[in-house]
This record gives sequence, structure tokens and C-alpha cells, in this order.
Amino acid sequence: MTKEQYEGYTYIDGGVCAAKGFQANGLYCGIKRAGAPDGTESPASDTKPDLCLVVSDVMCSAAAVFTQNKVKGAPVTVSQKHLAATGGRAKGMILNSGNANTCNADGEEKALKMCRLAADKLGIRVEEILIAQTGVIGQIMPIEPVETGMDALYNGLSYNGNEKAAAAIMTTDTVKKEVAVAFEMDGKLCHIGGMGKGSGMIHPNMATTLNVITTDCAVSSDVLQKVLREVVKVTYNCLSVDGDQSTNDTCAVFANGLAGNTEITSEGESLEIFKQGLFIVMSNITKMLAADGEGATKLLECNVSGAKNQDDAIIIAKSVIRSPLFKCAMFGEDANWGRILCAIGYAEADFDIKKVDVDLKSAKGTVAVCRNGAGVAFSEEQAAEILSEDEIFIRIALNQGMAEGTAWGCDLTYDYVKINGDYRS
Amino acid sequence: MTKEQYEGYTYIDGGVCAAKGFQANGLYCGIKRAGAPDGTESPASDTKPDLCLVVSDVMCSAAAVFTQNKVKGAPVTVSQKHLAATGGRAKGMILNSGNANTCNADGEEKALKMCRLAADKLGIRVEEILIAQTGVIGQIMPIEPVETGMDALYNGLSYNGNEKAAAAIMTTDTVKKEVAVAFEMDGKLCHIGGMGKGSGMIHPNMATTLNVITTDCAVSSDVLQKVLREVVKVTYNCLSVDGDQSTNDTCAVFANGLAGNTEITSEGESLEIFKQGLFIVMSNITKMLAADGEGATKLLECNVSGAKNQDDAIIIAKSVIRSPLFKCAMFGEDANWGRILCAIGYAEADFDIKKVDVDLKSAKGTVAVCRNGAGVAFSEEQAAEILSEDEIFIRIALNQGMAEGTAWGCDLTYDYVKINGDYRS
Repeated sequence: MTKEQYEGYTYIDGGVCAAKGFQANGLYCGIKRAGAPDGTESPASDTKPDLCLVVSDVMCSAAAVFTQNKVKGAPVTVSQKHLAATGGRAKGMILNSGNANTCNADGEEKALKMCRLAADKLGIRVEEILIAQTGVIGQIMPIEPVETGMDALYNGLSYNGNEKAAAAIMTTDTVKKEVAVAFEMDGKLCHIGGMGKGSGMIHPNMATTLNVITTDCAVSSDVLQKVLREVVKVTYNCLSVDGDQSTNDTCAVFANGLAGNTEITSEGESLEIFKQGLFIVMSNITKMLAADGEGATKLLECNVSGAKNQDDAIIIAKSVIRSPLFKCAMFGEDANWGRILCAIGYAEADFDIKKVDVDLKSAKGTVAVCRNGAGVAFSEEQAAEILSEDEIFIRIALNQGMAEGTAWGCDLTYDYVKINGDYRS
Repeated sequence: MTKEQYEGYTYIDGGVCAAKGFQANGLYCGIKRAGAPDGTESPASDTKPDLCLVVSDVMCSAAAVFTQNKVKGAPVTVSQKHLAATGGRAKGMILNSGNANTCNADGEEKALKMCRLAADKLGIRVEEILIAQTGVIGQIMPIEPVETGMDALYNGLSYNGNEKAAAAIMTTDTVKKEVAVAFEMDGKLCHIGGMGKGSGMIHPNMATTLNVITTDCAVSSDVLQKVLREVVKVTYNCLSVDGDQSTNDTCAVFANGLAGNTEITSEGESLEIFKQGLFIVMSNITKMLAADGEGATKLLECNVSGAKNQDDAIIIAKSVIRSPLFKCAMFGEDANWGRILCAIGYAEADFDIKKVDVDLKSAKGTVAVCRNGAGVAFSEEQAAEILSEDEIFIRIALNQGMAEGTAWGCDLTYDYVKINGDYRS
């Protein structure tokens, strides 16, 4: 995947441990193999890491966005309560894969118990721990593996445990997803890093997937919540793998202030610098999520320019990225641009289809397929060559305004069907 | 596919020719193999029937609903103009597969030309012919095959040409879709019959697919348009194969009055009898469309009861039917009911998830998987047995009101991806 370069920001290693004063750890505790209540094996019966903890040395400003699904996982409810109770302060987060702890009668109790196990070890209040969980919905969460594993989880915390943590939130993900950047503010070296997970059940209009972002910048809770919402709007919320909205999506940001900058409490240059850093981290994780969409062979990026406003641009870009027919065509490397026009046409946005131009682009070149809403002659050979690449860019010019927006997704493949036809066994 | 039985209505053969005074014909004229403008072969290079005509002996009341996509095929625009010009009177309809005639600069001109070719043969005004076209978007419509084929098309018109017509509108459809019923009104024997086509690019909130319905009942144009909209709402608009909304969807109804009943011009018993007949025809075609969804191996019917109102029930049913994750689970015969809850949860409707019950049902039995929004223990073996059937019923009880609604769809399979990965070649 191509990482775009931004002046003043340097990509670094370290993920959620890139920022000063953040420790992490991840391990296999047994959630993924734990027996279901009826005695059968858990669906994802493997021994891959399934539990992790991310902790700051000092108290943080914390902010989060959550799924908008009416069916909310117990961890979402618990995290919301904790943030409300502390007024946006937290010290860490516990996460697990292998079980979503959703649609369970005892879900909240179990999620709270997990927070308490971590808080007790860390010697802090239970409300200072947030929680996120992912996996099968509607299966009783086994709490014993967490109880048993907590000692080792805590003892293994380290300033370079980011990869272990990133691995422990993976479900059908095929790669770990971590990004971090370094930049200067007030003459201080600052860092923002993050990890994400997600492969299926990913769709815009919600926080999308599990994500933890850490930074050593000092930012007030209010500002952190505001800037998180703004950046989520143009990153995670512009991602669609399959159009399904998960029940457990959570994106939490922790800012511990150890970089030593003057705390950002309002609009201004510092906030812009921070926001840009957050955008770089979150947009890269977004692209990683798209590229690793279940069964995906291609990353699709759809950019819509010349819109009357940004919302319209994003709505149109998402509509194209979501279209199953278009996604199949990309898998087949078939320049069936009529499906792009079709998906533009059913987007609920304001535009005149007769002014729309469409290009398909990749590292192999660019081909114009539509001008003024109608097809133009093009070489199918050249188009096939362009579409043979792993990263495909769909460029839509509405020619009706100055605003633009981008959405990310992936192709629809046999493997998506295979993975999801038998996810639980 | 199971056809539900309704008292007073008898299923009969005959499709669009079941009603008195309707002739039809269909043939291969060369649209499907015609060369594209750049000299390459047309995508669907086969010699299956691609042109048909349905004509009434006498003038009809006519009504139609069309796609709500902003990108409208030229035939949609031309049909809308014709209905407006005549005030809802028409004598017939010409349809073709192999080319959607959409996103073409000369599209309207070509669509009008096709109507004129038919009208000239029939000795009627061009506005008395409606048109519908389906196939690849954005490829120039070859008019020569239609000019050449019109003589044979006209000469072959017959009172039992319905199957030929139904075959000529097929694209990736694997079976012809025809339904007809007979019933009595005013002591007269009446008939309603129809044909439909559609396999991919099918989604609610529009007329969905190409459909022609004929009846010998006497119904005024205004009433016909009103009742068509009402029935479309609970049939074609409750169907989703892949969530893509086509550019060319058209459902037209022709009522020629030859049954001899008193013309239906307002609410009343006759209208109810007619409406029920229309519902039987259109709901059966809807189910046929769902069962023949691209690559489908299973027909899915989702019924939502106990809703506060019908709109909420339909929205929730459609949300489940559309979920790619759930569709994959059905293909895999995996009782992953958490995905049903998830899709209910992101439906934009008013309900309390904590009261929701879900059952899965087929000819093999019924299994309760969720009560009060939480999972209940069930036998995976029994569930697998139930899901091994071709027709699966998802029964959702909201327990919050008296209204209900049903939506239809199909599973998501390898073949869907295969068909759409390389549709044009």
C-alpha cells in the first residue's frame, strides 16, 4: 500500500507505543478456544493472541466514537459510561478478539469485570479503563481466560509491546495494522500512533472497527473529542468493505501530554498540526483496513471532485465504493464503468449527471471512460492493464463546484464469500 | 419455489398473453452479438432472443413505475414522455435485452426510433408504444438489428407468444419468469398475467427490473397508476439481490377492458379484487426474481411482525435481506443469527432491540435463535438441517406493535462474484 508523504511529518515505527509513556502487551489467554455454554468449541478455535492492554504512565485526556448500530456491544455501553463518569479522562484500554460480547444477557457485567481486572492490577479506578471487544456476536463471553491471563498480560506490559497488542485484536485480518508519525509542535517532538483491526462488517456512518490511537501531545478532552469526530468523518467513516455496520465499533484516542507542548484547548495553529497528524495516522489505517478487507485482492480509492459540498462528494464516493457490482468488476479487472455511473446515480446527493467525467487510474496509467455522463471510446487493453494493479483509483469529476471527498474500499471476491459463508466454524 | 394459494384466484399459464386480446412475440435480432462502435464484439455475444413486443388488440389504460436512479436509461425517459403525452393510454410495449441504451448521447433518439418502428407496423401513434431496455450500460445501441428484425417480430405476434417474449428480456436470468391468475369480477372471468426479468443490480426503492403486466380488466389510468404504486411498494420494492439500483427499471401495466367488467374508477370491492390479483402476480414474480438472483442457491424471505407501522417492518426486513454477511452465512448454511441482529440494529426504524425475537424456518422445521434481543441455546445440528433447504424463512417478531412487512432476497455465493467479475466479456 502506498503511504502518502506529508511535509513536517515522519512515519515511524511503534504503533500505539510510539508516543512517550505508553505501554502495551498482547497474548493468547484462551477466549478464542474457550468452550461455548452448550459444550461445543468456540467458532474461532485457534490459539492466536486474543487479549491486549494499552496503558499510559500518566492520566490522559480521552475521547472516543462508537458504532451507531442500535444493537451495541456491551463494551460500547461500558466505555461510554466510563468516559461520561470521568468527563473524558482515562489511563488505558483493554481489548479482546474472539468474542464480541454482544447480545448476551450478562454482557455488561462481563465487560465491567474485565475493566476491573485490569484496573485492579494497575491500581486505578475501574472507570479509567475503556474496553473494546470483537468476534462472534451472541455467544457468552468466557471470563475465566481473562482472569487467568491478567497476571501475564500485566507483567508483560512494555514500551515496545505495540505489535503484540495489534496482533491480539485481529479476527479475520491477515495483517497487523499500525501507523505512527513524529512531528514538532512548540519546539517539542510529538508522536501520534495507532492500531486498528477490521476486515468484514465494515461500513461508513460509524466509528468502524476497533481502533486505539495514542499521543503524547497535550490536548484537552473536549478538543480531542471534537477533532476525533472531524477526522473520523473523512477517514474511517469513508470506508466500506461490505456495507454491514458492526455492533462493536470503537475508536478511542488517548492523549497523555508527555511531549511537553502547551495543552491544546482551542482552535489555532497547534490544533491544526495535531489534527493533520491524526489524519495521517487514521487515513493510513483506513487504507490498511480497506486493503485487508475480507477476501480483498485490490484496494479501491474513489475520489470525487467538483462537488457543491464535501458531504455530497463523500456520499457519491461511498456509493461507488459500496456497489457490489462495481466491486465484482474490479475483481474481474473489467472496466465496466457503467456500474460506476449507476452507483453515482443512486447516491443521495445533489448533482447533474450530464456533467460527470470518470477516469480509472493506477500505477500503470490513466484511462478516461466517461465524459459528460456518456461513454467515450477507450482501449480495453489499456484499461485491463491499468486494472491489473493492486491499487485502483477511481477519479470522478462532477464539474459542479469546488468540494471534494474520498472513500476507500476493496473488490468483492470468491474469498469474501468463502470467509463469511462459514465464519463461525 | 412455493406458490402461495389464494381463495378465488387460480394460477393459469399464459404470462402476458393470459389476458384476453394480448399478443406477444420474441426473437433474436442481433443486438446481443452486434459489434460495438470500436469494432469489438458486444459483451454478451450470444444469439439468445433479444427483442420482443407485447401488444393489445384494443387501446389500454396504462400505468408504469420507473427507476429512481438519477442516471436513467433513455427508454425510461421515452416511456415517461409517452405516458404523459397520452394521459396514460397505450397499446403495447417493445423491449430488448443485450443493451441498456443508457449513458449514450444518442440514446433517446434510438429508443424513440424503436417505438416508431413498432408503431408504424401496428399502424398506431408512436406515443402509444412504451419501451424498456436492459443490458450493458454505456454501449451504443445498435438500431440496425431492430430495423431488420421488426418484420419478423410483427409477423410472429400471437396469442400464445408469451414465452417467446419472456425469453427475450432475459440477461443473466437462468429461468423465464411468468405468472398469471384468473378470477371473477362482476360475474366476468378476468385475468392478470405478467413477465419479469432481473437477476443482478436489483434493489428496493424503485420499480426494480423490467416487468410487463397485462390484464383484461377495465381499470381507469388513474386508478391503475395508484394501485400499481401500492402493490410495487410491498412486492418489487421489497426485493434486494445485491443492493445496486439499476438505471433502467420499469414496471408497466396494460389494462384493455376486454373482460367486460364495469370499469374500475374508484375505491370499492372491484378494486380490492383487482388489487389482490395484481399482488398475487407481482409477489410471485418478486419471489422468482429473488430465487434467480445472480448466483443464488437459496430464496430468502424475511418477515417482520409486531412493528409499530408497516414502513418500519419493511425497512427492517430489507436491511436483513440486504446484509452481505448474512447472505454469505445463508450460503454457508450457518445459523449465524448475530448477523441478523446486527442488520436489524442498523435499520433506520423505530424499535427496541431488547424485545426482538428471531426464528429460522424452512420445510424442515423451525428453530428459535434469539429471544428478547439475546441468544438462546439451540441445536446447531437442527439449525443446519433447516438451513439445508432452498427456501429459508427468517421470522422476526418485534413485539412492539401490530404491523408487519416482508422482503425477499437470496444468498451471496461464489457464482455471484464470478458472474459479475466478468459480465461484459
